[in-house]
Amino acid sequence: MSNIKKIAILGASGYTGAELVRLIATHPHMEIAALTADRKAGMEMSAVFPHLRHLSLPTLCKVEDVDFSGIDLVFCALPHATSQRVILALPDNVKIVDLSADFRLRDPAVYAKWYGGEHVALELQKEAVYGLTEFYRDDIRAARLVAGTGCNAATGQFPILPLLAAGVIDPDEIIIDLATGVSGAGRSPKEGLLHSEVSEGYHAYNVAKHRHLAEFDQEFSKIAGREVRVSFAPHLLPQNRGILATIYVKGEAEAIHAALVAQYKDEPFIVVLPLGEAPATRHVRGSNFCHLGVIADRVDGRVMVFSALDNLTKGSSGQAIQNANLMLGLNETEGLMLAPLFP
Amino acid sequence: MSNIKKIAILGASGYTGAELVRLIATHPHMEIAALTADRKAGMEMSAVFPHLRHLSLPTLCKVEDVDFSGIDLVFCALPHATSQRVILALPDNVKIVDLSADFRLRDPAVYAKWYGGEHVALELQKEAVYGLTEFYRDDIRAARLVAGTGCNAATGQFPILPLLAAGVIDPDEIIIDLATGVSGAGRSPKEGLLHSEVSEGYHAYNVAKHRHLAEFDQEFSKIAGREVRVSFAPHLLPQNRGILATIYVKGEAEAIHAALVAQYKDEPFIVVLPLGEAPATRHVRGSNFCHLGVIADRVDGRVMVFSALDNLTKGSSGQAIQNANLMLGLNETEGLMLAPLFP
Amino acid sequence: MSNIKKIAILGASGYTGAELVRLIATHPHMEIAALTADRKAGMEMSAVFPHLRHLSLPTLCKVEDVDFSGIDLVFCALPHATSQRVILALPDNVKIVDLSADFRLRDPAVYAKWYGGEHVALELQKEAVYGLTEFYRDDIRAARLVAGTGCNAATGQFPILPLLAAGVIDPDEIIIDLATGVSGAGRSPKEGLLHSEVSEGYHAYNVAKHRHLAEFDQEFSKIAGREVRVSFAPHLLPQNRGILATIYVKGEAEAIHAALVAQYKDEPFIVVLPLGEAPATRHVRGSNFCHLGVIADRVDGRVMVFSALDNLTKGSSGQAIQNANLMLGLNETEGLMLAPLFP
Amino acid sequence: MSNIKKIAILGASGYTGAELVRLIATHPHMEIAALTADRKAGMEMSAVFPHLRHLSLPTLCKVEDVDFSGIDLVFCALPHATSQRVILALPDNVKIVDLSADFRLRDPAVYAKWYGGEHVALELQKEAVYGLTEFYRDDIRAARLVAGTGCNAATGQFPILPLLAAGVIDPDEIIIDLATGVSGAGRSPKEGLLHSEVSEGYHAYNVAKHRHLAEFDQEFSKIAGREVRVSFAPHLLPQNRGILATIYVKGEAEAIHAALVAQYKDEPFIVVLPLGEAPATRHVRGSNFCHLGVIADRVDGRVMVFSALDNLTKGSSGQAIQNANLMLGLNETEGLMLAPLFP
Repeated sequence: MSNIKKIAILGASGYTGAELVRLIATHPHMEIAALTADRKAGMEMSAVFPHLRHLSLPTLCKVEDVDFSGIDLVFCALPHATSQRVILALPDNVKIVDLSADFRLRDPAVYAKWYGGEHVALELQKEAVYGLTEFYRDDIRAARLVAGTGCNAATGQFPILPLLAAGVIDPDEIIIDLATGVSGAGRSPKEGLLHSEVSEGYHAYNVAKHRHLAEFDQEFSKIAGREVRVSFAPHLLPQNRGILATIYVKGEAEAIHAALVAQYKDEPFIVVLPLGEAPATRHVRGSNFCHLGVIADRVDGRVMVFSALDNLTKGSSGQAIQNANLMLGLNETEGLMLAPLFP
Repeated sequence: MSNIKKIAILGASGYTGAELVRLIATHPHMEIAALTADRKAGMEMSAVFPHLRHLSLPTLCKVEDVDFSGIDLVFCALPHATSQRVILALPDNVKIVDLSADFRLRDPAVYAKWYGGEHVALELQKEAVYGLTEFYRDDIRAARLVAGTGCNAATGQFPILPLLAAGVIDPDEIIIDLATGVSGAGRSPKEGLLHSEVSEGYHAYNVAKHRHLAEFDQEFSKIAGREVRVSFAPHLLPQNRGILATIYVKGEAEAIHAALVAQYKDEPFIVVLPLGEAPATRHVRGSNFCHLGVIADRVDGRVMVFSALDNLTKGSSGQAIQNANLMLGLNETEGLMLAPLFP
Repeated sequence: MSNIKKIAILGASGYTGAELVRLIATHPHMEIAALTADRKAGMEMSAVFPHLRHLSLPTLCKVEDVDFSGIDLVFCALPHATSQRVILALPDNVKIVDLSADFRLRDPAVYAKWYGGEHVALELQKEAVYGLTEFYRDDIRAARLVAGTGCNAATGQFPILPLLAAGVIDPDEIIIDLATGVSGAGRSPKEGLLHSEVSEGYHAYNVAKHRHLAEFDQEFSKIAGREVRVSFAPHLLPQNRGILATIYVKGEAEAIHAALVAQYKDEPFIVVLPLGEAPATRHVRGSNFCHLGVIADRVDGRVMVFSALDNLTKGSSGQAIQNANLMLGLNETEGLMLAPLFP
Repeated sequence: MSNIKKIAILGASGYTGAELVRLIATHPHMEIAALTADRKAGMEMSAVFPHLRHLSLPTLCKVEDVDFSGIDLVFCALPHATSQRVILALPDNVKIVDLSADFRLRDPAVYAKWYGGEHVALELQKEAVYGLTEFYRDDIRAARLVAGTGCNAATGQFPILPLLAAGVIDPDEIIIDLATGVSGAGRSPKEGLLHSEVSEGYHAYNVAKHRHLAEFDQEFSKIAGREVRVSFAPHLLPQNRGILATIYVKGEAEAIHAALVAQYKDEPFIVVLPLGEAPATRHVRGSNFCHLGVIADRVDGRVMVFSALDNLTKGSSGQAIQNANLMLGLNETEGLMLAPLFP
């Protein structure tokens, strides 16, 4: 009678897992039925994430101990390579939103090149729908398996895809300068993620070789109908949440702005700022919104385009819930209209 | 027919004003009908607080331009001294939650001593109910005017009031060491609040003379039935949100923990951690929860009690909505069950 | 006998003034004889900057109360427009390093365009030497008045000037994406510089219209022997110190790297990293070093060049002392070999 | 001929090791002859700590590969338990400053209780001098082995030792509330030290059971001539460097302030602020200074005493060099007069 969907989250001890729980906590039509975390099986979520201690949640268990019979949808927040093996073993009746990189790329050879291993679930890879909701909405609604996008990949695609589609920029002259908060790198302890190493400093990493380039190549080339290869330099910000892409393109600012407005005028989560304004990551923090801005360069024919979103929300877990809403026949914005947290 | 209450927010250009809007954005029974900001009258809220730009909100106006006839409840987020003058001029039919210090203190002489001026609304001061919901719930339900507590004052009172009431601590030996995020100091530019002055550093301020001492004195003495004067040293943290009080008391840890559990076992927002655990401000960020902890000192008869909340939420705007819910006959937790934002 | 130079610092209550004092504190051949701060005249430096309280320093006074007769060199850390008037009134025998924008631009019309007012000291403007030490060393040694560069301007020029000189990049395809710490905006209270507004967020500002563009145009065009107009998008980082420029150019990575190595191989403060490595602002914090890096893009013929320095040190006060050392006949590195502070 | 002392740093890949190198970089009478790091042996220091890349430093090697014959003094920055084994094996002619906890405690039973293992170098433990320079200066000058103090231990002892010695506070009523930056926890990756876990939050840890209590007990009881057991609650700050102790005592503020002034009036690194002023960690950042403050509580007979220092400098590596200077017959302040870095 009640329209409550039963949810399992696999890999609930990471940041995207916790973000899924945070968002589902006020979702009127989802209920968490199972939470898994292999190394933390047996622990309560309140011990792993004390900010969730006010919630009644299932004890963390191993994936193999989940009874999937009553589960409507699984969010899979496991590392890539693990994800494909786990998803391969799930029963057919369960819908899946995968937050890993395992099903983002259509071409197995490209996957192998960027992720360094053969894919073990090629049939599923073929079936999976790319999770950029605003561009694959109908496919997602009908899908059994949706592959969440990379967080940087989403940040770059929202502004660029409409411009390539509208033909208002030179596809051979796209530079994506991107800065991301540290939570995108996950909760596994690494020297480079320590507070002492991240705070009060800024640097580029994985320049020209970040794996999200594979998604850019795939999606940009597809929409442009020709090969598009962007330049991409990601940087690490001394902050937890938020990605800002500053994109240098060649075209006319008014046409670019108009193309974005046309594309997104009816979208609930993509906000195009007035021409000449730039967004800030702090103004989307903790929300599912993406703010886009366009500023004309002083050099004729050059334009800066900006895109800001929260990597854990619109960049992963919020996007995942948005897709799950569609797959479950729920209102797309359900549970996702939380305003950003500022300051 | 619909149970939607019309809300006005006076002083909407400050952080507590913005926090009210953020929380009301997903409140099912409140609608913002008016927003005022004297110096920013005529501006859109999206220009003052871009994180709220996805919302349809009234343009900021001056207080004198608000039509209060259809307003059910006013949140007054103005500076003290201004608050009393504005509230004095409001029509009788409007309920008011004041977030300033103007109506917190019962004794006009005490107000004059700590806030340096005569009170101009003594009748209202007499009528006002102190807004610590968990201790004045019935009075608040019936009140026309509720005075929101100081954010530090709330943080200290949640753990100490039950202990004084239960007689499990020495009332002459209470030390409140407190650390607060910088957003509590507001949005008015001051040298001491600059990023360069606040980040990567920690210091005490207003030691032994912070105005929230007046609230401690009033409420602690009242519940203890005798004069109680605590020691209080506030510190400024290099973070935006969150207050942690570390309270040094004399008593037995088990009895202290039991008194807190007994007091708060049915409260929706006050969470008492297991004995021996300490809370963290990051685990209540952006939420209306308050986490309390008790740890026995190695010295017999000494105990540390901890209290963590978000100064802008449970410490001011969340508390204000909790009280407004009661005053408007709504469910007390409506709009306030958002999970904390972490990381 | 002793080789101690007497120094006056005008405008000592700002961050660049404090940074000068910090550096001179361990400079073996400089002694601070006068410190001015108009609005804080009469105060002790220890009250204005408690981190300097261990030093014996002159009381802050007004500029007109300084006896310049025994002063060898003046650092002028005043706002632009004020600087030119104050410097015009200084006695002829005093050498001057100006940290404002007043004497950076050679063309009075360009100055008027970017800084919005006529220059009142045109003769001095003509005489002034641009303070980018590594490119104007001989002129600086002989100068009476040296104009310190903009901090962003210096960050961009160190990597680009040698590449234009060597002809290894396309001068029409230079994009400077830059991120800067907040201390560069100074100590005057402004809403946008508050901790609550800066921390945990990132955004672009003054895109395509930042005043340091005037310096880029002047110096790049001069060295290239033709007009060069770069694209420039500055961003504000949630940190106090440090600037990172990520520069997108067209050329070959090896040639670009070789040109930088050739230019800087004997420079004490400019460190060229091995090809393929990117610098970080945290690794130059508080020091006079500038780290440069070169990484080949995956797209043939495109290269990312990186430049990191501390805006308050190599970007202003450290540069100023480096220039002063030359002007006073001291060893150029005197007082400036402090290692960066990390973490 | 020249008075240059040869230095080896064992455990140079941690933060205290890097801090020693940073300080020695401008020390006129020390030269680094060997750097060890077991797991990073073979690496250049510039790869491990890029902020030191401008220095000519020996390649990292294993301890067993160091030729100690020409070494004057060894700084041992290894973990406790490892330290004692390594130091036991060092040749007799080498002086040693140990930064671990291994030689701080005089009583082997107390060491075993707090550090959970038998001490393997009991003779050395007996011989070692406790490294709180201002209280053990003469012993340190004559010592072969000096045990650096805990960083929190130093922060608490500077203000409290003189008060116990002067008899101006009640030794049974001492509460040390302490907040420390995260760099004190070292560079080994742990979940709790990640930027996402530390920034924008504050919490207490190891309450009433922190190991530095053992040093407090030992030194406070010794100077008081009776057992003194303080209450101690350490907290973790969202910043890298700096410790602030807020100490609640019973006594008279003037007498307390006078006792501190009397104790430290000739000390180069301990600065007693005027009565009524509180120090800030940001004002000692990166320096060897310790700032002390005293403020009278509003409750008669109660006083707050504050102590601020940089955990990596005066709290460990700066203190170590101060002691080494004494042991090597150098001026005690040599290399240590760097002004704090602010902002």
